[in-house]
Amino acid sequence: MKSTKNYQYELDFLVRDYECDLQGIVNNANYQHYLEHARHQFLLENGIDFAQLHADGIDLIVTRAEIDYKASLVSRDRFVVKLNLEREGNLRMVFNQDIFRIPDGKLVLSARMIGVGIRNGRPVRPDSIEGLEKLLG
Amino acid sequence: MKSTKNYQYELDFLVRDYECDLQGIVNNANYQHYLEHARHQFLLENGIDFAQLHADGIDLIVTRAEIDYKASLVSRDRFVVKLNLEREGNLRMVFNQDIFRIPDGKLVLSARMIGVGIRNGRPVRPDSIEGLEKLLG
Amino acid sequence: MKSTKNYQYELDFLVRDYECDLQGIVNNANYQHYLEHARHQFLLENGIDFAQLHADGIDLIVTRAEIDYKASLVSRDRFVVKLNLEREGNLRMVFNQDIFRIPDGKLVLSARMIGVGIRNGRPVRPDSIEGLEKLLG
Amino acid sequence: MKSTKNYQYELDFLVRDYECDLQGIVNNANYQHYLEHARHQFLLENGIDFAQLHADGIDLIVTRAEIDYKASLVSRDRFVVKLNLEREGNLRMVFNQDIFRIPDGKLVLSARMIGVGIRNGRPVRPDSIEGLEKLLG
Repeated sequence: MKSTKNYQYELDFLVRDYECDLQGIVNNANYQHYLEHARHQFLLENGIDFAQLHADGIDLIVTRAEIDYKASLVSRDRFVVKLNLEREGNLRMVFNQDIFRIPDGKLVLSARMIGVGIRNGRPVRPDSIEGLEKLLG
Repeated sequence: MKSTKNYQYELDFLVRDYECDLQGIVNNANYQHYLEHARHQFLLENGIDFAQLHADGIDLIVTRAEIDYKASLVSRDRFVVKLNLEREGNLRMVFNQDIFRIPDGKLVLSARMIGVGIRNGRPVRPDSIEGLEKLLG
Repeated sequence: MKSTKNYQYELDFLVRDYECDLQGIVNNANYQHYLEHARHQFLLENGIDFAQLHADGIDLIVTRAEIDYKASLVSRDRFVVKLNLEREGNLRMVFNQDIFRIPDGKLVLSARMIGVGIRNGRPVRPDSIEGLEKLLG
Repeated sequence: MKSTKNYQYELDFLVRDYECDLQGIVNNANYQHYLEHARHQFLLENGIDFAQLHADGIDLIVTRAEIDYKASLVSRDRFVVKLNLEREGNLRMVFNQDIFRIPDGKLVLSARMIGVGIRNGRPVRPDSIEGLEKLLG
């Protein structure tokens, strides 16, 4: 089970009805919203503000997403996004993100989101972004 | 019938499945997306670029929306957003926007979207924005 | 000040970055999402399940939205949606919904959302929907 | 270059401003919307209606997404989603989907979207879904 991983962060959510599509389940694209929001909150609570970084000329960009959809969430479901962050090479950050339904802990989605920092169109080393170094364990 | 109005612009759309919610109909919020896209395309085709204006320090902002939902759109429906623009007082612009289903012409939605231009937090006269004057009939 | 109204319900939110558009502020359409989610949670906590109602053949539909946008929310803002519900005539429900920024209490948006219940394409009296009667004060 | 692939289908789009986020570029999640809409239109034009299938008790579900983000789209960009469909094993369908900016043909995104058909919670062979067999080349 994935739940035995060491996660650095977790954030609870509730499915909102507008996130469900005509199949009555959360639309695939909305999981990317959940994953993004969890990453940004994780960074924010560690002193790294995505919007402020953008204003300062640094953009954090996803370059590759690998998402396994294991089960569907429906209206009223509660769930938690858990994540950890690791370095890959000099430039890439990898967020490992899993979504579990609450309260039964069913694995809903497992993702590997790979990103880089960009300044003036060029990659910057993640460990040169203030506050990020210590998260890259 | 609304279709007898003189419209300055119209734009065709197709409902995308992800825009429908668990009721199987287009979610209310998505109509605001359709209306916004039609307004921006109307402005763009008249030489006014919403994104460029923002980059130049001028933001066009909706201050009030009055939307009558008359019928629902569903998966696969085609529709047209028709609009005209009028001045209200010195500062306000009013977009009258109607949505009709294609091909039967059924009125789906009728909206009055009121907006202003803002620079540095203060309203600017719409007719001071290049290109907008001639659209305000 | 609107905050002196008697509200029947309130729900706290946090702006998510993906809800902001290229102007760096929450996109207009997303406020409708916030308002909808607050209404559905209010109903749910009073025993009325929007998704279940749909499954049972009753759809709650917004027929008119009047939304005054007073101020903009930006990345990281917290806010609260407050609402009350009243009857209008025999068939219509009116949700009065206000959004205030947290913690300064600035009024962000004030809306009047008018809706009806529909079964088999025909309006049903709201007080015939189990649990709704007592909310209509 | 990916553009030398044999694609079975292509669909043109225009970036809508509300699809851009505070970085001024199309938000990652919206690419999934573009990919989904292209898949559904491809199926529809080949006689397979996603919404009708759902009404008939068959849901087409994405089980894995692999998405390489190569470049960003911005306000006003036009682009084309190209795709082909192949079988993987007995149960899985793979949509290979690439997005190219118009008119310069720059590769924006390359995705492998893997899906299955589900009826009553169980996978069904794609070639048992009417019309799908002939698309699976």
